[in-house]
Amino acid sequence: MSTFTALDVQDVRFPTSRSLDGSDAMNPDPDYSAAYLTLRTDAGDAGAALVFTIGRGNDVQSAAIAALAPHLVGRDVEEVLADLGGIYRELTYDSQLRWLGPEKGVMTMAIGAVVNALWDLRARREGRPLWLTLASLSPEELLELVDLRYLEDALTREEALEILRRGAEGKEQRIAALREQGVPAYTTTPGWLGYSDEKLVRLLREAREDGFEMVKLKVGADAADDERRMRIAREEMGPAFPIAIDANQRWGTAEAIEAIRALAPHDPYWVEEPTYPDDVLAHAAIREAVTPVRIATGEQAANRVLFKQLLQAGGIDVLQADATRVAGINENLAILLLAAKFDVPVCPHAGGVGLCEMVQHVAFLDAVAIGGDDERRRIEFVDHLHEHFEVPVRIVSGAYMAPEEPGNGARMLDASIQDHLFPDGPVWAEGQGPQGAEGTRRAPLEPSATR
Amino acid sequence: MSTFTALDVQDVRFPTSRSLDGSDAMNPDPDYSAAYLTLRTDAGDAGAALVFTIGRGNDVQSAAIAALAPHLVGRDVEEVLADLGGIYRELTYDSQLRWLGPEKGVMTMAIGAVVNALWDLRARREGRPLWLTLASLSPEELLELVDLRYLEDALTREEALEILRRGAEGKEQRIAALREQGVPAYTTTPGWLGYSDEKLVRLLREAREDGFEMVKLKVGADAADDERRMRIAREEMGPAFPIAIDANQRWGTAEAIEAIRALAPHDPYWVEEPTYPDDVLAHAAIREAVTPVRIATGEQAANRVLFKQLLQAGGIDVLQADATRVAGINENLAILLLAAKFDVPVCPHAGGVGLCEMVQHVAFLDAVAIGGDDERRRIEFVDHLHEHFEVPVRIVSGAYMAPEEPGNGARMLDASIQDHLFPDGPVWAEGQGPQGAEGTRRAPLEPSATR
Repeated sequence: MSTFTALDVQDVRFPTSRSLDGSDAMNPDPDYSAAYLTLRTDAGDAGAALVFTIGRGNDVQSAAIAALAPHLVGRDVEEVLADLGGIYRELTYDSQLRWLGPEKGVMTMAIGAVVNALWDLRARREGRPLWLTLASLSPEELLELVDLRYLEDALTREEALEILRRGAEGKEQRIAALREQGVPAYTTTPGWLGYSDEKLVRLLREAREDGFEMVKLKVGADAADDERRMRIAREEMGPAFPIAIDANQRWGTAEAIEAIRALAPHDPYWVEEPTYPDDVLAHAAIREAVTPVRIATGEQAANRVLFKQLLQAGGIDVLQADATRVAGINENLAILLLAAKFDVPVCPHAGGVGLCEMVQHVAFLDAVAIGGDDERRRIEFVDHLHEHFEVPVRIVSGAYMAPEEPGNGARMLDASIQDHLFPDGPVWAEGQGPQGAEGTRRAPLEPSATR
Repeated sequence: MSTFTALDVQDVRFPTSRSLDGSDAMNPDPDYSAAYLTLRTDAGDAGAALVFTIGRGNDVQSAAIAALAPHLVGRDVEEVLADLGGIYRELTYDSQLRWLGPEKGVMTMAIGAVVNALWDLRARREGRPLWLTLASLSPEELLELVDLRYLEDALTREEALEILRRGAEGKEQRIAALREQGVPAYTTTPGWLGYSDEKLVRLLREAREDGFEMVKLKVGADAADDERRMRIAREEMGPAFPIAIDANQRWGTAEAIEAIRALAPHDPYWVEEPTYPDDVLAHAAIREAVTPVRIATGEQAANRVLFKQLLQAGGIDVLQADATRVAGINENLAILLLAAKFDVPVCPHAGGVGLCEMVQHVAFLDAVAIGGDDERRRIEFVDHLHEHFEVPVRIVSGAYMAPEEPGNGARMLDASIQDHLFPDGPVWAEGQGPQGAEGTRRAPLEPSATR
């Protein structure tokens, strides 16, 4: 028997705007940050999780996580860990906290951090990586973790169970195959706005040489630049190589249709975030107008109900789940089920600090137990800030290798946390401001923009 | 010339759960609260605003407002007040803060508080109530306050300007008429869940005697109770009296359709929040299935893009704008324009502490300069906590009388703030907990639930 003793939150920020290489159309100067949670027990162990933000407001996000302490501290650990569907629903339906969303924004991301930290602790106690902890559950146990409220017009309980039962067939063989081959990654490294054409070409070649079988370019700031860069990339990579583009919500509906049609001759593999992510009807209108060009979104989609609608309306071809935007892995489980129901591949968003480490568990879970074999599945990768984590991702020949260490991947090195505490850690305290050259623990790497 | 010197935030909570008379299907025990902002200048004046919450998390909301201080403190007051469209866009598109939404939840409500406090200050300096400050602007000046990004597939700049120009015609006569007659209110007082049938009947009679020409009942907890209470109310009030019902997001799509069909024989005037407010497609499906029963939502709708979709999809007959849920009066201006475009009446949400005082300005602005004469317009009213405000609402014969005092209505009495500071004000500090009997400044009034 053990008891939760503390819910510690730390405001950790990396001064990535000091060494900015890339930038996108909506996020010019991010300081990659983590509202970092450690949920401690009197047995001496702890669960960790983080919410990724891009700087200002990380203190607000930290305060929101801390506000959840009364829900956990003093409670029996084993009891809580045995019913992680229960605590997820308890937090989501706390009526007073719910008023602050409902089910969106700062408070939902805070709930996600607590849910994810609880899963980290459970996986550690089981000695397994999170994806395997989840994949080891029965279809009925997985379903118990999901909240189908507001979903049943698109996904009934029976359909969800059927998906999970189908997912359980051949699970062991899929686990073995995934441990061998991993899940394919794609890289956003070559495509940041502001790179010269020469640098774009050089980085595209390097990506191909590193084994990546897909790349992504940022677009949306200037139509002529977008067309030229996309043309150069297509010429360099050849006609069959998947090249996605990402507009970071820059366009309205009509603008998006016009811009995508202008780029369509260069065969973009998908167009990501063409507009505001909550605009279900706009996504449907854009997709219909530009078909067969694929539409993708999700990194800033707040919850399962929005994903449900994007799928119902035929708004997306690719669902980009994020590890820290929604109310934790339980919410992501519902999202994976919805994607499976609509036969839309899940290609998780990553790149932000800790996101690669965390989101790979979502993809491996999907591959093992829900979506199953799907050659369309790819995880975003940016080679950035991994050295701050206890277990950095492993990329081999352009694929994420299955994490085998216990936990959810979020645990950061203590020295990294201490160095980057905001505003009093050494990186920030010496009055360097965001443009100072000193204080980063490492040489700047490309790219350090938002994804 | 003056300069902003401080952005002070206070966590003010009223222990309404101690004296709970009413409750609704999703919010059993609210402590009506205000994250209360005072934006001070070195000229000695200040703008006030609040974000309404229902208790836990009011500290998080307060922290979010405080995080916006660097955007204002030290800046020239006159310059900021002369371009309140500019500061609204600056805050909404601060890329780092935007990550925490985008445009939803805690951070957006914080931006709304700052925007509303700036308008309060501007109106005070002009010596006018906020609605009149806004209604005195030209169509072009009003349009400059609005952000049409992500709206233009439903409302072009030209259409918005046309609505505003039409709204400018006959403005003076409408102002005179509104000052005479006010805007009709409706009351939620009789209809809280948990009241006995006898009490329901007594309060319905009192509402009619007080001059209210519409009432609202809470539903959603138990179908048999809902049917019986609606039947009793219809019998008491007669066949023509408008009786709305409010399910507070309790249902999924199929449940909502079934429940509304069961109540339809009693002719509900509208059905409010049948399901999760962001579920555009569900609202459209529900409305189509139950037509001609009217569907209403909006009190928890985060922004203009969601309202746009609810209107585009044919999801609502009644748009319930809220004063503190969205990014301030600028965002509400866009929402009023959308409603006018789709010819849907705006019936603002109120009831929460300070909401009646603030939201009446939205309705009067709409009546004067945007929607114009519309007999469908009504403002929610609950007789609760008004005595804590410098200028409480005035209800005469079931109508809101035009506020004439300068400002936006949010300013609270200093004694009320001090008494209710959380956790150290006298109401909270004496360890009474939310169930204590002492410490409220007033005898409990019915009802003290969430709206």
